[in-house]
Amino acid sequence: MNNFIYHNPTKLVFGKGQIARLGKLIPADKKIMITFGGGSVRRNGVYDQVVKALEGRDWVEFWGIEPNPSVETVREAVALGRENGSDFLLAVGGGSVIDGTKLIAAGLLYDGDPWDIVLKGQADKTVPLGTVLTMSATGSEMNSGSVISRQETKEKYAFYGDYPVFSILDPETLYSLPQRQIACGLSDTFVHVLEQYMTTPGQSRLMDRWAEGILHTVIEIAPKIWENQHDYAVMSEYMLGATLALNDMIRMGVTQDWATHMIGHELTALHGLTHGATLAIVINGTLRVLREQKRGKLLQYGERIWGIADGSEEERIDRTLEATKKFFRSLGLSTRLSEEGIGETTIAEIERRFNASGVKYGEAQNVDGAAARRILEACM
Amino acid sequence: MNNFIYHNPTKLVFGKGQIARLGKLIPADKKIMITFGGGSVRRNGVYDQVVKALEGRDWVEFWGIEPNPSVETVREAVALGRENGSDFLLAVGGGSVIDGTKLIAAGLLYDGDPWDIVLKGQADKTVPLGTVLTMSATGSEMNSGSVISRQETKEKYAFYGDYPVFSILDPETLYSLPQRQIACGLSDTFVHVLEQYMTTPGQSRLMDRWAEGILHTVIEIAPKIWENQHDYAVMSEYMLGATLALNDMIRMGVTQDWATHMIGHELTALHGLTHGATLAIVINGTLRVLREQKRGKLLQYGERIWGIADGSEEERIDRTLEATKKFFRSLGLSTRLSEEGIGETTIAEIERRFNASGVKYGEAQNVDGAAARRILEACM
Repeated sequence: MNNFIYHNPTKLVFGKGQIARLGKLIPADKKIMITFGGGSVRRNGVYDQVVKALEGRDWVEFWGIEPNPSVETVREAVALGRENGSDFLLAVGGGSVIDGTKLIAAGLLYDGDPWDIVLKGQADKTVPLGTVLTMSATGSEMNSGSVISRQETKEKYAFYGDYPVFSILDPETLYSLPQRQIACGLSDTFVHVLEQYMTTPGQSRLMDRWAEGILHTVIEIAPKIWENQHDYAVMSEYMLGATLALNDMIRMGVTQDWATHMIGHELTALHGLTHGATLAIVINGTLRVLREQKRGKLLQYGERIWGIADGSEEERIDRTLEATKKFFRSLGLSTRLSEEGIGETTIAEIERRFNASGVKYGEAQNVDGAAARRILEACM
Repeated sequence: MNNFIYHNPTKLVFGKGQIARLGKLIPADKKIMITFGGGSVRRNGVYDQVVKALEGRDWVEFWGIEPNPSVETVREAVALGRENGSDFLLAVGGGSVIDGTKLIAAGLLYDGDPWDIVLKGQADKTVPLGTVLTMSATGSEMNSGSVISRQETKEKYAFYGDYPVFSILDPETLYSLPQRQIACGLSDTFVHVLEQYMTTPGQSRLMDRWAEGILHTVIEIAPKIWENQHDYAVMSEYMLGATLALNDMIRMGVTQDWATHMIGHELTALHGLTHGATLAIVINGTLRVLREQKRGKLLQYGERIWGIADGSEEERIDRTLEATKKFFRSLGLSTRLSEEGIGETTIAEIERRFNASGVKYGEAQNVDGAAARRILEACM
């Protein structure tokens, strides 16, 4: 096991009716800015619950943080927050709203352009941030990361800062989500786990088991969600699973990969394809191209998750890769670039960007431009 | 899934060499009181590492927090801390030293007798506390609980307060532990998980998987520890597993039991038997007597942990109970009261105490004096 520091101070407030606690969770003297996405919270009743919980409090609203939140939008929000002296942020939405608000939290205490913070990769100071989650996928509600896009240059990068001080997770807020959003959320959750699990074997039995526990859960609940999206028990597992997949708990003492995410971010930046949808495609290429490097973990994953224990190692890995692809297809997601009309032009641009950055991604730091090309070609 | 709040702010600093970070983890202006147990840290080098890491800092030492820490000892430590104006506590030891220091942390800010705090069950204010763990078992290094004994009345109760601000876990500190202490630590870890898992089935697939992940790990590593107690990888799993077994992470949204612990505490209070050793006995009685209530989870546990999937339900449960008992015996621990010379006198006293308290323990709040008697008789 590698040395590590784990420190996640976010207070998780989970369950039905918990939005009513907002008034107690935010100190009484705070000037709040509430941030929202496109307006679905007005239709599903979440907005009304938030307003009721904050009755008599001092707040302003900022609407319009878009999917793949942009620094352009964040700049507007920072201006509004400054104008109003906001010293507490409440993000009401999914991962995009929360990610965008994390940059607002840093931008409010930074004199220059917020994009500097993204390029630096680290926020030095932030205004405290709470969240009301309405779409489970990114884990942003209980981690320190944020991914921001810059529309004018079609770039998308991650930076790190403070953890939310609290996050309210009410599974009932997920009842009205479009099926495709849930599919992308499940895909994101599954691949978050694989990024922290599909690495060198034998680093931690315990972390392997916890990662496998989330994978089992996602596989078991996915068909149940399609049967009944108002099944509270099932939606609870989805909501909790997405959070625990990326809140540092399954990465204690083990290495990580993230090459699939880096390639996926480029597909989103270039084509606007939803994050979870990019992962459902790219992961299949990553596992095929890095098959030798990931052999040990692929065999363990195949046996423990998919019950594939018989046959030669090659046969077992082949069947494991097929089972994985079939799982993503069962979510209704594409698993090939060509299905999304993406081809050589995009592959060439991603290869160019990877080479230009000079960074080699993945656990073994061997995913350069050429490897990214091979991975993308493997999922054509 | 039940509503829950999870909030564990302890910073976990894990791995070899991490004691050297102490100087940075404790603010420079603090007047530190370091608390110790009986002196094994002088022999295994931990004391020297702590002293080196705190060179030039202001501290006093308090020695002699005993196994099953007593309020009598805590009173002495509080007096020393007051005398020296201590405003930061550093516990260096196992669960007993940490538990005792948690009461010192509360006692320093309380005007009356610290036993009041134990009886109240809750500490209102505490001095900040860090820990250097040298014996893995109780999880106290990353939770808010503490169990304190009162020698003059042979009582033992839990209270809750603040989480440690940090805990340093270096698996190398476990190399020199006596085998019996490790056996009791593994037993404690295993039963901590069972207390949070062997309850109503179907509450959370995810929490079930995480609990089972710790059980699998403990079962797999136990024989490896007996082979080589200096195997860093194996001792890391033990150390991390014991912490994750009782740091709130596997109890999100699920009910808990704790009847076995309540009975075990009485055995320690009356006979001085080590905590983990009491659990290795009592759990067998609890699972037998509450067999019907725990039927669903016993079947799941038997199949997933012990691979017992064939035969009638009754046969499967019988074999599961046997496998569990055999596991504790493989640790070299007694699984029957009679092996420890404990009999009817003690059973009668525990029955009397349970009835006198009027509290009914366990998930279903049905473990009263009569049930405690049946459980104890079942492990005679």
